[in-house]
Amino acid sequence: MPAFSVMGEFEVIQRYFANSGRARKDTLIGVGDDGAVLQLREGYDLVVTTDTMVAGTHFFPDVDPRALGHKLVAVNISDLAAMGAEPAWLSLAMTLPKVEDPWLAAFADAFSETADYYDCQLVGGDTTRGPMTFTVVAKGQVPHGKMLTRRGAKVGDFIYVTGTLGDAGLGLRLCQGQVEVSKKHSAHILQRFHYPTARLAIGQALRTVASSAMDLSDGLYSDIQHLMHRSAVGASLDIERLPLSQALKDSCDRSTALALALSGGEDYELLFTVPESKKSMLDVLLSPYGVPVTCIGRITGAAGKLELRAGNEPFAYEHRGFEHFEK
Amino acid sequence: MPAFSVMGEFEVIQRYFANSGRARKDTLIGVGDDGAVLQLREGYDLVVTTDTMVAGTHFFPDVDPRALGHKLVAVNISDLAAMGAEPAWLSLAMTLPKVEDPWLAAFADAFSETADYYDCQLVGGDTTRGPMTFTVVAKGQVPHGKMLTRRGAKVGDFIYVTGTLGDAGLGLRLCQGQVEVSKKHSAHILQRFHYPTARLAIGQALRTVASSAMDLSDGLYSDIQHLMHRSAVGASLDIERLPLSQALKDSCDRSTALALALSGGEDYELLFTVPESKKSMLDVLLSPYGVPVTCIGRITGAAGKLELRAGNEPFAYEHRGFEHFEK
Repeated sequence: MPAFSVMGEFEVIQRYFANSGRARKDTLIGVGDDGAVLQLREGYDLVVTTDTMVAGTHFFPDVDPRALGHKLVAVNISDLAAMGAEPAWLSLAMTLPKVEDPWLAAFADAFSETADYYDCQLVGGDTTRGPMTFTVVAKGQVPHGKMLTRRGAKVGDFIYVTGTLGDAGLGLRLCQGQVEVSKKHSAHILQRFHYPTARLAIGQALRTVASSAMDLSDGLYSDIQHLMHRSAVGASLDIERLPLSQALKDSCDRSTALALALSGGEDYELLFTVPESKKSMLDVLLSPYGVPVTCIGRITGAAGKLELRAGNEPFAYEHRGFEHFEK
Repeated sequence: MPAFSVMGEFEVIQRYFANSGRARKDTLIGVGDDGAVLQLREGYDLVVTTDTMVAGTHFFPDVDPRALGHKLVAVNISDLAAMGAEPAWLSLAMTLPKVEDPWLAAFADAFSETADYYDCQLVGGDTTRGPMTFTVVAKGQVPHGKMLTRRGAKVGDFIYVTGTLGDAGLGLRLCQGQVEVSKKHSAHILQRFHYPTARLAIGQALRTVASSAMDLSDGLYSDIQHLMHRSAVGASLDIERLPLSQALKDSCDRSTALALALSGGEDYELLFTVPESKKSMLDVLLSPYGVPVTCIGRITGAAGKLELRAGNEPFAYEHRGFEHFEK
């Protein structure tokens, strides 16, 4: 590609991202060549995920660069978690209108810190000039044949989610000035929106028990339909069982809380299914991680049909995907 | 990531890119899950390259979508070629202001055709809304320890390039209306600009003889300095030996032709070095491929110094990086 004219592509990466994240022994060639050369563990397969964030669509143009740097890494690692993979390497393609030193330094710092936290090394990328856009490609490894996918859900399987739902959606609305949140809860809510945590250990632990898994990015209501589609099944969810944080319950009425939990998006929790025969193993298996896991429904044979219940009653819900960051 | 609101991300990929490129047996999970799962050949390392193209910076907003689809794939495969790798998989992150059916269909068609030509499968990506930007991540494989890098050039090594230089640079200026090219040559020149060919077979053949290699994207003058930097050497080039096509020589005066060959960019030819002891093997090794290869100079011990000669005389040259597509 033609060079970035303000500062060379090479210089941008060298200056801000040199040795970003952990220096891994299995990185044979990192940043600075035509490509990276990476050595996979024997008996492991490669897992690759891609996520793009565009200013004005996925983040506010005046976002804290530290939050953005963190989130870009975390949401990609969340996809690896959903596949049961161990993260290893990241590539970063940045399109920037200009190179602003303090902004880029803070962004790179948070990006590198988060990469390091997840034991990942930045091994390449591209820097171009244009409207602000970031694409991260995360690469991980999974023992051959042991990956989790959206494909394996079977009729009768129990449906679970990690953590709580709707907090990040509330955090977004808080940033947009659409809602108010008490001082007691606002830090937690903003943390959940700006600094998601990838459920990495849980994803790896689920390899032996889950029949399918995915991460929640658009919101439970729309995400579960992808899983249903790939597995050719239906699902029945009990909305009374949706795990809601005290902060969410204290901050809005019940119907808003449920709408945020179902359609608010950006939860980056794991959604997964477990066959009845393995249900009892689950608590034992996940207890070391201290992350709550909640059963919210079951897989049905009504392919493509998503049924919502409130206990034993049908629950009428009109889903509308939130238009994130749009006017 | 929040969904693409005009058409779901999933639908865009399914509709336009389903089974894009070859269906490879080593693709365990392709498009449609949280990530792709890919099985590397035993004893091979993974090679990953990233390239971004931004409308207005790297291509004209009114570019033929077929040319763009082709070029996005080819320039990434060119990076793999420079590493001596065999291409296998592609990811595509597209940011689009809107989904325009005929445009996207033509783009996807050319993308898929080119992927297929290079034996690659599209295994994932992301679709987001915003100013038009494309990031391709190409993944290939190389036998363990056999990759070509920019690092290995040694004093006394001979410097080579494949093909001819400057044609694509002339093609760009032709598109910009800055130059005129006779009817006899214009098709060739535009082809070289819009439809570069990755020197894949050459790259793989070079594994046993080249001490270093890279692909030429910004132009010989600036690219060779990256190789010099990584190898901690200098270089001496004889500008009289630069391979120029008849089309280039017929279309401009000598100094313009040399400026395009040195700084025009977008050649996507390979630049590589060969130790004296292996020089005689080169012709034999490369003869099956029908791609001309020209010796243009030698590596020197003057680290960081690029010396240009015209035969035995010093050659004064003022490099200016062309500002591609800028007003």
